[in-house]
Amino acid sequence: MAGRIGNQKFLDKVMSADDAAAFIEPGDSIGFSGFTGAGYPKEVPGALARRIKAATDRGEEFKVRVFTGASTAPELDGVLAETNNMAFRTPYQSDPSLRKVINNGTTDYCDIHLSHLSKMINLGYMGDIDVAVVEATLITEDGKVVPTSSVGMSRTYLARAKKIIIEVNEWQTEDLYGMHDIYYGIGQVPPNTPPIPITAPGDLIGEKAFTIDTDKVVAVVKTNDPDRNSPFKPLDDDSKKIAGYLLDLFDHEVRHGRMPANLFPLQSGVGNIANAVLAGLLDSKYENMTSYTEVIQDGMVNLIDAGKISVASATSFSLSPDAAHHMNENASDYRGKIILRPQDVSNHPEVIRRLGVISCNGMIEADIFGNVNSTHISGTRMMNGIGGSGDFTRSASLSIFVSPSTAKDGAISTIVPMVSHVDHTEHDVMVIITEYGVADLRGLSPRRRPEVIIDNCAHPDYRAALHEYYDRALKTNKAIHTPMDLDNAFSFHQRLRDTGTMMPS
Amino acid sequence: MAGRIGNQKFLDKVMSADDAAAFIEPGDSIGFSGFTGAGYPKEVPGALARRIKAATDRGEEFKVRVFTGASTAPELDGVLAETNNMAFRTPYQSDPSLRKVINNGTTDYCDIHLSHLSKMINLGYMGDIDVAVVEATLITEDGKVVPTSSVGMSRTYLARAKKIIIEVNEWQTEDLYGMHDIYYGIGQVPPNTPPIPITAPGDLIGEKAFTIDTDKVVAVVKTNDPDRNSPFKPLDDDSKKIAGYLLDLFDHEVRHGRMPANLFPLQSGVGNIANAVLAGLLDSKYENMTSYTEVIQDGMVNLIDAGKISVASATSFSLSPDAAHHMNENASDYRGKIILRPQDVSNHPEVIRRLGVISCNGMIEADIFGNVNSTHISGTRMMNGIGGSGDFTRSASLSIFVSPSTAKDGAISTIVPMVSHVDHTEHDVMVIITEYGVADLRGLSPRRRPEVIIDNCAHPDYRAALHEYYDRALKTNKAIHTPMDLDNAFSFHQRLRDTGTMMPS
Repeated sequence: MAGRIGNQKFLDKVMSADDAAAFIEPGDSIGFSGFTGAGYPKEVPGALARRIKAATDRGEEFKVRVFTGASTAPELDGVLAETNNMAFRTPYQSDPSLRKVINNGTTDYCDIHLSHLSKMINLGYMGDIDVAVVEATLITEDGKVVPTSSVGMSRTYLARAKKIIIEVNEWQTEDLYGMHDIYYGIGQVPPNTPPIPITAPGDLIGEKAFTIDTDKVVAVVKTNDPDRNSPFKPLDDDSKKIAGYLLDLFDHEVRHGRMPANLFPLQSGVGNIANAVLAGLLDSKYENMTSYTEVIQDGMVNLIDAGKISVASATSFSLSPDAAHHMNENASDYRGKIILRPQDVSNHPEVIRRLGVISCNGMIEADIFGNVNSTHISGTRMMNGIGGSGDFTRSASLSIFVSPSTAKDGAISTIVPMVSHVDHTEHDVMVIITEYGVADLRGLSPRRRPEVIIDNCAHPDYRAALHEYYDRALKTNKAIHTPMDLDNAFSFHQRLRDTGTMMPS
Repeated sequence: MAGRIGNQKFLDKVMSADDAAAFIEPGDSIGFSGFTGAGYPKEVPGALARRIKAATDRGEEFKVRVFTGASTAPELDGVLAETNNMAFRTPYQSDPSLRKVINNGTTDYCDIHLSHLSKMINLGYMGDIDVAVVEATLITEDGKVVPTSSVGMSRTYLARAKKIIIEVNEWQTEDLYGMHDIYYGIGQVPPNTPPIPITAPGDLIGEKAFTIDTDKVVAVVKTNDPDRNSPFKPLDDDSKKIAGYLLDLFDHEVRHGRMPANLFPLQSGVGNIANAVLAGLLDSKYENMTSYTEVIQDGMVNLIDAGKISVASATSFSLSPDAAHHMNENASDYRGKIILRPQDVSNHPEVIRRLGVISCNGMIEADIFGNVNSTHISGTRMMNGIGGSGDFTRSASLSIFVSPSTAKDGAISTIVPMVSHVDHTEHDVMVIITEYGVADLRGLSPRRRPEVIIDNCAHPDYRAALHEYYDRALKTNKAIHTPMDLDNAFSFHQRLRDTGTMMPS
C-alpha cells in the first residue's frame, strides 16, 4: 500500500477520515470525485456526516454545498443527505435519501447539463470551491494524482479548491494508470480556448493523471472499499424488443447510406435497456464499432472483449460487481481500448457533433409531439436529473429516446398528450422507441408526429385516449401549428393523481 | 452588368425568370438562398408561383418543398405561400402569408435549429434537394459564385442540388466580394470532420465564394431588386430600460472578474430590443468588443463605425433601408470588420462555446421556473420559429432572454405559471430581463427561481396572481422539486382565451 503513495508530501499527510473531515468547515462548498457510482470518495463523506451530526447536536449550524461529477452512492450522497444539512447539490444524483430531501425542499438541487458545470464553475457562477475530496488509485513520485474508476469533474475541483483531500483506495487497481486522458486545454475561462483536438473516439490528447498544487493537499486517507456496483437485472422481453427495433433502425440507416457500415460512435445512457441494446449489438453483424459516451457498462466491456468495439471513450465505469472484479483483474488489457476523460470532454458538444455520435437515452415520458421529460414525475417530483442526456441529444447525428410504453403495471403511459416537464424539446428529438415500435420524427411537422408516436409507440390500451385528445386539440382553434388543448393537456397526469391510473375508466 | 458574370458558361445560361422557373418540377425540393430578408432570390420565386398557379388552374398538382437559410420576404415566402402549394417549409420564417398556411395546416413547417439543417440534409434526413436558387452579386471568371447580403444555407444547397439557378442581382454591391468566408471543412457527413479552426470572431478560415459544379447551372437570371430591409422603430422606453439592465449586468460581470473588460463576443437576436441594446453599448464605456452572431443589424454597424466593435461575424445582414444604402456605398470599408459565414459555422455550438459568446434573444413568454417559449402563441399558433436562439443559448457562457413584461396593452403577461411551449428549458436559461429588472437564475434551484422572476421581471399587475399560483402549487404535494399545479398551470392562457386578458378579474 505504501507503494500507492509515491510522494513524500502526500505520505506526510496520511491520516484518518475523521481527521481529514475536520478540515471541512460549515458553509463549505465541496467538490467530490465520483460519477455514476464509480470513483467517489468512500470514507471522508461519512466522517463529514458524523462531524455535521456532532455539530448540529451541539446546536451549531453546519450546512455544506455538495458538487460531484454525477451520481455517487449511499456512502456519499446517502449519508450527507441524511444529515438534513446538504444545503445545495449539483449537477446529478440518483440516491433515494437525497431524492427525498431534494423533493421536500431541504436541499437546493441544481440540475445542470453535465458538460456545463465545469465552465460555470470556472466562470465563477457557482461560487468558490472550498475543498476537493477526490479518490485516487495512486500518487506518482512527482505528486500527480491518478484517478480511479471515473474522472468526472475532478480536474476542475482539484484546480479550483483551496484545500485538497485525497482518498487512496487500494480496492481500485493500479493498472488503471494509463486509462485516463486528462485534457487541460479547456476548463479555463473563454475566449481563446483552443479547439479540442479529438477527431476519433480513441484519440489521446491529455495527461495520464491530475497535476495539482501539492501545497493544497491537507489530508490523505487510505481506503479499501468497492465502488457501488449494482448487478443488472436479467434482460426482459420489453428491453429485448426495444433493442431489436433499435438495431432495425441502424440497419435501415446503413442501408440508406446515412451511416457508415460500422455505425457512428455510440452513446448510450445507463440502465437495463441500454445494456439490452449493447447485448443486441453483440449478436449483430456490426464490427469495428466505437463508442463516445459517458459511462462504460458491462455490455460495452463485452463488446470490447468480443472485438466488436475497438475503442470506447467515456468519463466513468458503471459496472456490475462481477464486471468490476473482472476489470480490476484485467485493467491493463483494456488500456487504449477504454479511455476515461473529464466529463466536459466526454460530453462536449464540440466533439459529439464532430464525431456524429448516435445518442440513445431513457426517459420518463414523451408527448405526442416529441417533447421528452427525463427528470420530473408528474412535473413536480425530481427523479434523478438530466445528466448528460441533453449534451448528447442536442449534438447527436441521430438522437434516440427509449422506454417501455407503460410503467407501474400499465397505470402510467410513457406517451402522454403533453409532457409535464420538458428536458428535450421537440426540436431535438429525432426518434422514439418503445417495445411497440419506432417513431421516426425526422422532417415531420408537429401535425405529422402524433400519428407515428401514438400508433407506433404508445401502448395499445392508451391509443384511443391519445387520439381522442389530439382530435379535440385539432378542433380548439383554426390557427394551429401544434394542436394543443389547454384544458386537457395534463389530463393523463390529473387522472393518475385522482384515480391512480392514467387509463380512462 | 455583363461584368458581373465573368464566366462564359454562366453567360450562356442567362434567361428570364419565367424560363428559369420552368426548370422546377412538381414535387421538387428547392433550396433558396436568403436569411432574415437578405440575399434571397427576388424573381424566380415569383415566376415559380405563376408557374404553379397556371398548372393548378389547369387542374394539375404542383406542390413544392421550400428550404431556405431563415426568413425571406414577400417575394419568396409570400408569393409561394399564397399559391397554397408549399407542401413543406424549413427551417425558419417570419412571413404573414406563410404563417397563415402553416397554422391552417396547408404547409408542413419543420422548425429546426438553424445550425442543424445542413447536417440533417447532408445525412439524408430531409430528402434530396432538387434545385438550388441562389442570389449572387457576381460570378468570377473561374465560375465561383459570390453571395450577396447573406450566406445562410447556400453552400449546402449548391453542393447537394441537381440543378442550380443563379440570380445575379445588380442592386447588391460587387464590393461584398471578400466579405464572405465560406468554410468547406464541415458540411460533409461525420465522422472524421476536422475541428473548426476559429479561435476569434475575426478568423478567416474559408473561401471568398462558393465553388460549384458549373455543369449543374441550368439558368442565370439578372435582377436589380433591393433586399427586404425594414426600418427600425424609434427606441421606446421599455427597450431602453431593458438595454440599461443588460448593461448593468455586463458591468456586474466584469467587476466580478467573470468577463473580460471588452466583454465576451456578443450574439443578439433580431429586432427593436436588440437594436436598443446595441445603441446602449454605443454610449457605454466598452471598447474593443467583438460579435459572433447571426445577423448584422444597424446598431452593429454603428458600433463598428464608432470603433467600439472591432469585428463582427454573422451569416447575414438585416439592415434598415438607410443602412443598406450606406452598406452598398461603403461595403469595401467593412472588409475584415464584417464577416459573413455559412449558418452552420456562424451558429455552430463548437465555436459559440469556445469563444464564450453572450447570447441575448427575445421571447414570447417565460415561466416562473425559467423555461422559455420562443415560437408558439398559447402553445398552438406558430409565430416565426426557434431560429438560432437554441444554437446560441445552449452553448453561451451567459444566456439571456429579454422581453417587455406585457404585450397587447397589458392583456398578456410575458411571465406565466408555465410556458405553453418549451423551446429553451430551465437547464439553459441563465438570465431573464424585462423593463422591470433582471432575474439571474444561475445556481438557483427551481424553488428559488419564482421569487426572482416574479418580483424582478413580471409586470407588477401580474405579480399577485403569479405568487398565488406558486403558493398553491407548493401545497399540492409534499414531494416537490418543481412546484407545479397541474390544474392551473395554463390558467393564464385559459383566461386569455376566455376573457381576452390574462389578468384575473
